[in-house]
Amino acid sequence: MKIPVVTQHRHVHLSEEDAVTLFGGALTPERSIAHKGQFLSTESVSIIGLKGTFDRVRILGPERTQTQVELSASDAFAIGLDVPARMSGDLSRAGSCILRTPHGEVKAKSSTIIAARHLHCSQSDAEKLQLAHLDVISVATQSGEQLNNVIVRIHPTYATEFHLTKDEAAEYWLQTGDHVTLL
Amino acid sequence: MKIPVVTQHRHVHLSEEDAVTLFGGALTPERSIAHKGQFLSTESVSIIGLKGTFDRVRILGPERTQTQVELSASDAFAIGLDVPARMSGDLSRAGSCILRTPHGEVKAKSSTIIAARHLHCSQSDAEKLQLAHLDVISVATQSGEQLNNVIVRIHPTYATEFHLTKDEAAEYWLQTGDHVTLL
Repeated sequence: MKIPVVTQHRHVHLSEEDAVTLFGGALTPERSIAHKGQFLSTESVSIIGLKGTFDRVRILGPERTQTQVELSASDAFAIGLDVPARMSGDLSRAGSCILRTPHGEVKAKSSTIIAARHLHCSQSDAEKLQLAHLDVISVATQSGEQLNNVIVRIHPTYATEFHLTKDEAAEYWLQTGDHVTLL
Repeated sequence: MKIPVVTQHRHVHLSEEDAVTLFGGALTPERSIAHKGQFLSTESVSIIGLKGTFDRVRILGPERTQTQVELSASDAFAIGLDVPARMSGDLSRAGSCILRTPHGEVKAKSSTIIAARHLHCSQSDAEKLQLAHLDVISVATQSGEQLNNVIVRIHPTYATEFHLTKDEAAEYWLQTGDHVTLL
């Protein structure tokens, strides 16, 4: 089974409260993304670290229970943030940053992670591949290189995709549209 | 005409002399890339700036007359390099860095650029689109956003592709495999 690669841009998820502080209201969908019910919003935000800022960072909606900022390792280093690699949703000892728009500012404590590479997997593909939620697997690239420590996340709304940051994508020379196979 | 988007990983091109210094010989092809005659090499190199290092940066072969290091703006900022945006091949007042492998080290003076976004264009597509080499055009994304100041580069060996850095790709939420249209 060929699993499509999707390289991850830096992006932000917002809580309802933080969306109101930063934009005065709810996020505005621009277009849907592959994962059911999620969308790219028209809004963007500045991420401020101790040594620099990323402007015009895109936000994925809808609002979540917690604000979460996802960077690559080099992004975090660039703006002076000490950020751990974590699975999305696990904000234990996550990093902190400031989010700012012309409308407002949020101190996003324990919000900021380097998204650990993972296999997003639909329920039906998980059954086909005999995978369980939070399994740790290895995948092979089309060049035959092996990536270990890939965490499996299964959810009925997920499209089956292999997600990695742009740093890892550069190292393995992977692009969105390439594929990997399970080992 | 739909023009495919290819987001650009940080990468290095080497002169023959620098390849010998860094690896003791010529680059080894791992696999070909879309532009005729070019390949991803099996070798990788560390790029050292004033404030940090990128390890395992991939090298595109074959060797060129000049060593050229291509970064995104946030990459350059991350490792403390003052680097101008330039068209590939234009190294006037380019930045400098150190390239290092276990085999050797090169002071890569006037080598380092942020690759300006550009339309790689085959000769036949250029005729179809009525474009001339170094024309400056605008393109529209599938979301209807407009990117201006796109430089056209025409060469018989080129696949027709719109190239932009990871920073711009994150801002416009573009992935390799998306497409843009000429305005």
